[in-house]
Amino acid sequence: MSDVQSNRMKGVLAPVLTPFGEDGKPDPVRLEQLCRWLISHDCGLAIFGTNSEGNSLSIAERLDLLAHLVAAGLPADRMMPGTGSCSLPEAVSLTRAVVDHGCGGALVLPPFYFKIATDDGLFAFFAELVERIGDDRLRIYLYHIPPVTHVGISHALIERLLKRYPGVIAGMKDSGGDWAYTEKTLSLFASSGFDVFCGTETILLETMRRGGRGCISATCNVNPGAIVRLYNTWQADDAPQQQEALNLIRASFAAYPMIAAMKDAVSVALGDPGWTRVRPPLQELNPDERASLRRRLSELSFDLRRMSSS
Amino acid sequence: MSDVQSNRMKGVLAPVLTPFGEDGKPDPVRLEQLCRWLISHDCGLAIFGTNSEGNSLSIAERLDLLAHLVAAGLPADRMMPGTGSCSLPEAVSLTRAVVDHGCGGALVLPPFYFKIATDDGLFAFFAELVERIGDDRLRIYLYHIPPVTHVGISHALIERLLKRYPGVIAGMKDSGGDWAYTEKTLSLFASSGFDVFCGTETILLETMRRGGRGCISATCNVNPGAIVRLYNTWQADDAPQQQEALNLIRASFAAYPMIAAMKDAVSVALGDPGWTRVRPPLQELNPDERASLRRRLSELSFDLRRMSSS
Repeated sequence: MSDVQSNRMKGVLAPVLTPFGEDGKPDPVRLEQLCRWLISHDCGLAIFGTNSEGNSLSIAERLDLLAHLVAAGLPADRMMPGTGSCSLPEAVSLTRAVVDHGCGGALVLPPFYFKIATDDGLFAFFAELVERIGDDRLRIYLYHIPPVTHVGISHALIERLLKRYPGVIAGMKDSGGDWAYTEKTLSLFASSGFDVFCGTETILLETMRRGGRGCISATCNVNPGAIVRLYNTWQADDAPQQQEALNLIRASFAAYPMIAAMKDAVSVALGDPGWTRVRPPLQELNPDERASLRRRLSELSFDLRRMSSS
Repeated sequence: MSDVQSNRMKGVLAPVLTPFGEDGKPDPVRLEQLCRWLISHDCGLAIFGTNSEGNSLSIAERLDLLAHLVAAGLPADRMMPGTGSCSLPEAVSLTRAVVDHGCGGALVLPPFYFKIATDDGLFAFFAELVERIGDDRLRIYLYHIPPVTHVGISHALIERLLKRYPGVIAGMKDSGGDWAYTEKTLSLFASSGFDVFCGTETILLETMRRGGRGCISATCNVNPGAIVRLYNTWQADDAPQQQEALNLIRASFAAYPMIAAMKDAVSVALGDPGWTRVRPPLQELNPDERASLRRRLSELSFDLRRMSSS
């Protein structure tokens, strides 16, 4: 087991926010800058996640951005790009690129247009993905986020996939918002080489206590230092206090449209107004929301200009 | 109004089933054959719809299939390809191709990954799509299908889009399964140059009575003749009886996974076992389902070998 897991991803990853230029296209230079800052806080890069507006990007845009980041020298083994698509050939293209670039893993959504999908059908989807990649370096992290996809990953499906593709089916990002499901996933699979990352740092401590592997959470974009600290010291006496402090910051962002709020914070932190842009159907914060967010963060002594450097 | 609408799409369209070859790729020759058969029944071609497994296809596959059908001489003005994508640049690419090929319209889903989208955000998405195409020939049909997308098209949004882009926002496919919504859409907009197509033929008669423009429904793939007949004769005395007969056929298919059931029927009709293939996460009917479907259709005297030639 330790051999299998020794090169496995772990710790804290951010679904890295995707900056857009004035022309509406993704901005690789701004993205690279944020990635460097996250890595400097020992925060991994789950690019093209939900909070990256990953599904707002075309397949070509995702391939280009990934190639740019790797060429820029960012560590591929700390990357877990989102490669899901309702279209199997697109999921194959993206996942193959992720393997070829040497990324630590691929975060794969189920084919979320198809609410009628059965476990048999989802098994066939993931199985065909694995078979068509046909590469021992492949590490798939199943992306469970039924509040968005309305297509979940059942425990029976995990069991079948793990049995058929041990090592390749490497774990899960669990953004289900249902602790009973998370707890059961951990108890059933955490000791079988299936690495569970919670989808919000608000349950990081509980997840680590039950054998989880870390956390992939929106707010890691703006609060990576403190979240990584809890991950590193979850067995310390002050871990519950750390957890409470994280939860307050999280709640401040979650009171607004999260992606727009985090982009606003990054724009302040970097002194770069262009960071606030989002792609439709998302929208930037309005001036009232912006002022109110800054006030809330200020009350928590969360200094945007030195964002989470603690 | 009559000028605006004279070149508008109307009548009955099928979300044309997409055949796959043994290699799992879409089969343009089989697709062309089904399209010719549908057109011979005066049934239009809503290729790449939900029942076409449109979202299982890559953007490149959709562009290739469309180009093949147009090159094969199928009438572009009877085509309403699905061009929706969660990614705006992909929706732009597909929609531009549809306009360039001279298609009658484009059926556009909202960006369905984003359950948090507001009406303002959806307006921005559709507005940017229209502006970036920048072509007077563009005809957008909004695709309202909240049971699948969980992102609906509100009446307020229709009103804003119609006001801003009259003529370009041409209508809707309403697959909401909520007659109260359909009825209100018709009463609010049917007289304003906004053409409502019901998403199931089970409400075709009621839709036509209230000023609808036709129907785009799964079962048109297997029962086009009879559905077109009701469309053409909805004011005839026997229209209610026609409607009842359509509903029985529809119910027979709807008792099974619809796409697999219709592909099974086409495979029998054309004597071509290869037609049953679906792309994961969908699955073919199992032998029991297959036998049971054929029995039900036989009881209705629905002769698969002469599928809906009546």
